[in-house]
Amino acid sequence: MFNKEEQTRKIIEFIQDYFQKCHLGGVVIGISGGKDSAVVAALFAKAIGEENILGVTMPCHSKEEDKEDAKLIADTYHFPLINVDLTKTYDTFHEEVEKLSEFTKSEDSDINLKPRLRMSTLYYLAQMMSKKEHKTYIVAGTGNKCEEYVGYFTKGGDSVSDIKVLADLTVEEVIQVGEVLKVPEKVLYKTPSDGLSGKSDEDKLGVTYKDIAKVIHQEEVAEEVKEKIEAMHKNCEHKFHIPTYFQDK
Amino acid sequence: MFNKEEQTRKIIEFIQDYFQKCHLGGVVIGISGGKDSAVVAALFAKAIGEENILGVTMPCHSKEEDKEDAKLIADTYHFPLINVDLTKTYDTFHEEVEKLSEFTKSEDSDINLKPRLRMSTLYYLAQMMSKKEHKTYIVAGTGNKCEEYVGYFTKGGDSVSDIKVLADLTVEEVIQVGEVLKVPEKVLYKTPSDGLSGKSDEDKLGVTYKDIAKVIHQEEVAEEVKEKIEAMHKNCEHKFHIPTYFQDK
Repeated sequence: MFNKEEQTRKIIEFIQDYFQKCHLGGVVIGISGGKDSAVVAALFAKAIGEENILGVTMPCHSKEEDKEDAKLIADTYHFPLINVDLTKTYDTFHEEVEKLSEFTKSEDSDINLKPRLRMSTLYYLAQMMSKKEHKTYIVAGTGNKCEEYVGYFTKGGDSVSDIKVLADLTVEEVIQVGEVLKVPEKVLYKTPSDGLSGKSDEDKLGVTYKDIAKVIHQEEVAEEVKEKIEAMHKNCEHKFHIPTYFQDK
Repeated sequence: MFNKEEQTRKIIEFIQDYFQKCHLGGVVIGISGGKDSAVVAALFAKAIGEENILGVTMPCHSKEEDKEDAKLIADTYHFPLINVDLTKTYDTFHEEVEKLSEFTKSEDSDINLKPRLRMSTLYYLAQMMSKKEHKTYIVAGTGNKCEEYVGYFTKGGDSVSDIKVLADLTVEEVIQVGEVLKVPEKVLYKTPSDGLSGKSDEDKLGVTYKDIAKVIHQEEVAEEVKEKIEAMHKNCEHKFHIPTYFQDK
């Protein structure tokens, strides 16, 4: 059984131990307006203090609504929140690619570009903050175990971080930790969505997070659903281990 | 002993096996004008045919000279080479960050942004090519074993790829494979440099690739040099394994 108070305490200790061991000073967190980044921010606020957090919203042709929810989280946990609008950067990149006669505009629709630009931004800001504050800032990952299990993340995007605190927690467990830390209900119980495609995560995945959690915990679930989830799991193996040539020794 | 003909053949077979197993159709390679990407391109040309390669130059406030060397490689192995100039995208990003009153221009100097934009570009083009050609394109990694050993790469940048063919070869071994594949001498024996900082790799690292290879092969090397290299190796551990909280079960 998942003991939410105990797990919350242990995650906070995990962060504190790692920061002490590596002499770290602060953390940069992309605040999407969803529950994962809210829970991560709440955990770090407890673990290292709100004054050592930099929250970042990175709209890119995005809904204003998400930014409001991000602000709610920053206000709740009292950390500074800055806004880096990536719309122009994204558009400039496209203009450059469209110059190539080989490619036409209609073929252009890589939904993974935004997460990669966001990752680049978080690392850029971590570097800047480290210089400005004379202490080392790292980038926090916000992915949970269900997303990782089915590969629902962008390689080279949201999968790149310096510390992962939710990666072993199912969506339901993340919500429970959020309850302990009093994450505003509006955010905590919001339907998960990537904020990119206009669809909910579960619509896109074609399976529910509940069923993914059941498969992870080897609990009973309809055979057809299980097969679908296991196939997704198998198909994302390449996102975790890059196939590499090794010399026989 | 490194048998260069045999290793070259085996790497080519490795690529062919992986492409067949995963039903892949093509590869996108960032062509820097240096030897690593030249050798990777030469290997893929042999393995899957030049018609299935897309070479990309991605200047970003860069020297024209590197582009000429990239063109020499594309001409030698007969694959198409496109140019995506990232200068404007890079500048647009900076303008956006500079709007933040917290940061002043002088603090801005993250040399890792360019490799991250380049990675994003390669994946974007792989996605585009997959749609255009109706077959799956992947992104080739170009890092060698010496660079990996001391962490001389950008996390979330050049470290992100879909297949790594040189990652178990020292710099000297990469050159030997390049000799088998007749990589133009001008490129093959060029002093390694990231093309970003204006310094050679070895200047920046403060150690030679030869000494790194010796440490990897547990050969004799001055104690002081060995300690320096081992310290670099230890310090980059976080680039390979993201510290992650796990529940005790």
